[in-house]
Amino acid sequence: MTHIPDISPPDHAHGRCRALGAVLDRIGDKWVVMVVGALSHGPMRFNALKRLIGAVSQRMLTLTLRGMERDGLVTRTQYPTIPPRVDYALTDLGHSLIVPLSHLSAWADENLATIEAARRAHEALEADAA
Amino acid sequence: MTHIPDISPPDHAHGRCRALGAVLDRIGDKWVVMVVGALSHGPMRFNALKRLIGAVSQRMLTLTLRGMERDGLVTRTQYPTIPPRVDYALTDLGHSLIVPLSHLSAWADENLATIEAARRAHEALEADAA
Repeated sequence: MTHIPDISPPDHAHGRCRALGAVLDRIGDKWVVMVVGALSHGPMRFNALKRLIGAVSQRMLTLTLRGMERDGLVTRTQYPTIPPRVDYALTDLGHSLIVPLSHLSAWADENLATIEAARRAHEALEADAA
Repeated sequence: MTHIPDISPPDHAHGRCRALGAVLDRIGDKWVVMVVGALSHGPMRFNALKRLIGAVSQRMLTLTLRGMERDGLVTRTQYPTIPPRVDYALTDLGHSLIVPLSHLSAWADENLATIEAARRAHEALEADAA
């Protein structure tokens, strides 16, 4: 077996595991990941964000941004123009998520086809068994 | 600005972003992450897994393992002993998740306190505004 980083509960049952759970409840959300990705090149307005992310609803994006603001991952800056302009940007904390999320993103890229094949094979097995 | 890995939608609006979304719907789940962590050292029976993860319910762990089996992340092996013994183990695909998840786990470790402080500050602001 190759060396693997330790993410098992035993050695961090009290701290690390709970921290990971608490954080994943927030950043494991796919919209959070999409927003981090979209804002990784710079601040953006709500509508531009929405266009870029695509499949997200107005309400879901609003809730996602509000939660991320609360968690210190994004800032919301309102400019006193007419009409008022609101920019969203990553904080330093939000920026620091880009690297770990990019590892996950690369894994997803590489393995989505494998996962989908596993699902199909599993469904075929179940159909045979029925 | 330092070099940052690209996880923004623009360059992968059609493939990468969707792959990430589809995969996060599954592995972004905190129980999946906990199971990968717990099984990272070797196969384990259901009850041992449940004890190790701690806060998970019987039903949630069953559903999580069933989904992971379907996605090709774990195998379920039943031994014809009395009483029957069932082991869960990571597949190669499941193993390959350990590294990216450990990056996220390290980030969570490092930043949970900051996130919680941001939440408290935000709540205090809202209380002041009320």
